[in-house]
Amino acid sequence: MIRVNPNYSKIQANYLFAEVARRVKAYQEENPSAQLIRLGIGDVTRALPAACVEALEKASREMGADATFRGYGPDYGYAFLREAIAEGDFRARGCDVSPDEIFVSDGAKCDTGNIQEIFDLSARVAVPDPVYPVYVDSNVMAGRTGPAADGRYAGLVYLEGNEENGYVPEPPQEPADVVYLCYPNNPTGAVATKAQLARWVAWARENGALILFDAAYEAFIRDPEIPHSIYEIPGAREVAVEFRSFSKTAGFTGTRCGYCVVPSDCRAFDADGNAVPLQPLWKRRQSTKFNGVSYPVQRAAEAACSPEGRAQCRELIDGYLANARLVTDFLEARGYRCTGGRNSPYVWFDSGMESWAFFDKLLREAGVVTTPGSGFGRAGAGRCRITAFNSRENVERALERLGSVL
Amino acid sequence: MIRVNPNYSKIQANYLFAEVARRVKAYQEENPSAQLIRLGIGDVTRALPAACVEALEKASREMGADATFRGYGPDYGYAFLREAIAEGDFRARGCDVSPDEIFVSDGAKCDTGNIQEIFDLSARVAVPDPVYPVYVDSNVMAGRTGPAADGRYAGLVYLEGNEENGYVPEPPQEPADVVYLCYPNNPTGAVATKAQLARWVAWARENGALILFDAAYEAFIRDPEIPHSIYEIPGAREVAVEFRSFSKTAGFTGTRCGYCVVPSDCRAFDADGNAVPLQPLWKRRQSTKFNGVSYPVQRAAEAACSPEGRAQCRELIDGYLANARLVTDFLEARGYRCTGGRNSPYVWFDSGMESWAFFDKLLREAGVVTTPGSGFGRAGAGRCRITAFNSRENVERALERLGSVL
Repeated sequence: MIRVNPNYSKIQANYLFAEVARRVKAYQEENPSAQLIRLGIGDVTRALPAACVEALEKASREMGADATFRGYGPDYGYAFLREAIAEGDFRARGCDVSPDEIFVSDGAKCDTGNIQEIFDLSARVAVPDPVYPVYVDSNVMAGRTGPAADGRYAGLVYLEGNEENGYVPEPPQEPADVVYLCYPNNPTGAVATKAQLARWVAWARENGALILFDAAYEAFIRDPEIPHSIYEIPGAREVAVEFRSFSKTAGFTGTRCGYCVVPSDCRAFDADGNAVPLQPLWKRRQSTKFNGVSYPVQRAAEAACSPEGRAQCRELIDGYLANARLVTDFLEARGYRCTGGRNSPYVWFDSGMESWAFFDKLLREAGVVTTPGSGFGRAGAGRCRITAFNSRENVERALERLGSVL
Repeated sequence: MIRVNPNYSKIQANYLFAEVARRVKAYQEENPSAQLIRLGIGDVTRALPAACVEALEKASREMGADATFRGYGPDYGYAFLREAIAEGDFRARGCDVSPDEIFVSDGAKCDTGNIQEIFDLSARVAVPDPVYPVYVDSNVMAGRTGPAADGRYAGLVYLEGNEENGYVPEPPQEPADVVYLCYPNNPTGAVATKAQLARWVAWARENGALILFDAAYEAFIRDPEIPHSIYEIPGAREVAVEFRSFSKTAGFTGTRCGYCVVPSDCRAFDADGNAVPLQPLWKRRQSTKFNGVSYPVQRAAEAACSPEGRAQCRELIDGYLANARLVTDFLEARGYRCTGGRNSPYVWFDSGMESWAFFDKLLREAGVVTTPGSGFGRAGAGRCRITAFNSRENVERALERLGSVL
C-alpha cells in the first residue's frame, strides 16, 4: 500500500500568497470597476534588458540549425556562464570563488528548497522570523520538524527579528546545525553589515554549523559598506553556501535562472563527526535530480553579466529603488518606522494594526494590494510589506490614494 | 554540527556515463586522429522544429517590452500549454485527462527524480533491471534502501528483464508499494502491449500500489496496437502517474520542458490506510520547491503541440527511427537477437561478451561509442545499447566500420 509522506499534512494549509489572491479576487468581484495597484508579490514588472533579449533570440536561432544546435548541456551549467558569474559577481569584488564552484540552476527558490536534501534528517534548523516560507516548508516536508502550533513548528530554532535588532538577529544561544540567512532580507528589506555577518561566520566555525546565505537581492545594494556576498567575510568559504538569482537582478522571474555557490572547501560532517566536503553531495543531487537550464536562458544570463547587460540591469534596479525610496519617504513622513526601502526593493513597517485588518483596509479603502507581515511568521504580526516592483506611475498613484487613508 | 545525508554514500561512485566518457577520453588521447562516432548517450542531435524556434524567438521579443513582458508564471504551467497537451496528447487518443491534471516541469528526469518525495520513506519500491538509473538513485538518496551489494540495493524489489520476457516483466510476487515502468523502455527499447499494462494496472488496484509510468519515448511508437499512455488502460487513472517529455519528442534535451500527469482521482493512502488524493501533495511539492518553466520555453513546447509542430516532430523522429531500423537490420543479419529498434530509438542486444569488454572492442576496433548494458543493472550483463540519435550519414558510416568487426 503506497503511503504518502506524512510530513506534508503538517504544513499550514493557507499559503500566504494564495490567501492574498483569494481576498483580492473576492474584492474585485464585489467591485468590478476598481483599478487595483499591486505592491504585494515580489515579482518584477519591467521588460528584460535588451542585451538579454538579444542573446535569447540569437540562441533560439542557433537551436534551429543542426550545426549550432545544443542538446544536453553540462550538468552544472555552461562554462561561459559559470566563468562570467565567477568573474563579475565575485572576483571583481575580491571574493575568491572559481567557476567550478558555481552551480547554475533554474532559480534560487529551487536551490534553497532543494539544498536541505543533502543534510541528515536530524539536522537542527534555524530560521529567521519573519521568514521566506520556502526555507521552513522544505524542511517540514522533509520531516525535520514536529507539528505546528501557534504559527511555529516544533524542532525549529526561530531567530526573532524586530525593530530593536533591525531584523538582523544574533546567532542563537541554543544549538543549531544549519541556519538560513537572507540579506538584503525578504520580507523586511534589512541589510546586514560585515561585522554582523562576521559574527555568524564565527558562530558557524565554532559550532560546526553551516550558513545558507540567500543573496537573491544583492543587486539592490547601493551602500558601499554593505557586503554583497557572504564570501566577503574571511573564513566564510568553509562554512557557507550562497544562493543568487537573475530573477530580481535582471528581471528573470519568468525566464528562470539562478545559481548557488558551494566552495570546494565548504565542509560538513559524517556520522562519526569527521569533516567531509559538501560539494560532491550537491553535485550528486543535481546530476541525479536536475538536468540543467535551457541553453537560450543560459545565454541570456551570460548577457546579463556582460558590461552592457550589467549597465542595463543597474538601470532597471535603479528604477525599482527610486520607487522604494518614494514609499519609504511617504511612510516615514507619516510617522511609520520603516525597515528596508534602501538597498532593497522591500519596505517593511509596523502598521499599528493587526496585519490582515491593515491589508484589508488598504485593499478596500485605497485599492492597493500589499502583503500582511504575519504571513511571514509570528514576528511579522502587525507589520506590512510593500514592494517596489511596479511602474513609477503606479507607485505614485498608489501613494496618492494611500495619502487619504493613512 | 551539520551532518550530511548518510544515504549519499551508498550510491555506486562510478556513474555509467561518466565511466563511458572517461574511457572515450583516454582512447582519444592515445589516438588523437581517430574520428569517433557516438551512438552511446540518448541525446538528440538534430535542430529544433522550425515551429518551436519561431515560438522561442517571438516569446523572447515579448519579454523585451513592458507591455508583453511576463514575470512569474502559473505554478503548474501556462493554461495555453496545459490545454494543448491535454487535447493533443490525451483526448485525441481517447484518454480522459484534463488540463488541470497536467503539471509542466523542466524535464522528465526532474519529475521522475522528485516524485518519490511525496511518498512515505517506508515505501517499498520496485524497479526494472535493467533500469534508467534516476529511479534507483533518487530513492537511495532519500533513504529507502540499504547498502548496495553485487550491483543491487537492499530493500528494492528488482523486476528482471530478459530475452524470455521481452524485457516486460510481470508484476512481482513479493510485496511492493510503488513501481517504475518505462515504455518504450530505456535502455532496452522494449514496448508493452495493452494486455501487459492491464496486468500492471490490475496488480496496482489489488495491492493499493502506485505505478509511475515513464512515457518519455512514446512519440517513437508507430505500431497502432501499442499504447502511448498508461491512461489507455481502463482503471489506470486511480493508480498511475505518467511522465512525458519534449526532450525526445521535439528535440528539447537542451531546451528543457516536460510534464507529468497526476489525475484528480489518483489515490494513495495515509498512515491509517485511508485513501487520500495524491494530486494535492504534488501541487504542494511543486509550488514549494519549483518555480515554473521559462515562458519562452513553454511557448516553444506549445508550438510543438500545434498541427504544424507535430508534423515537424514526426519527421524528426522518423529520421531517428530509420536509423534504428538500419542498426537493427544490420545486427539481426549477423545473428544478434535485438530488442527495440522499432517504436524506439534504442537497440539492445546480447553481445556475447562481457559488457565493458564489448564496449572497448567497438571503441578501439571501430571507433564507435555505445553504452555497456551492465551499466543499467545486473540483468544488463553482456548486453549492449546502441542509440539512433545521430545523422543518417554517421549511422551508415558506423555500420560500415562495425561490419568488419562483428
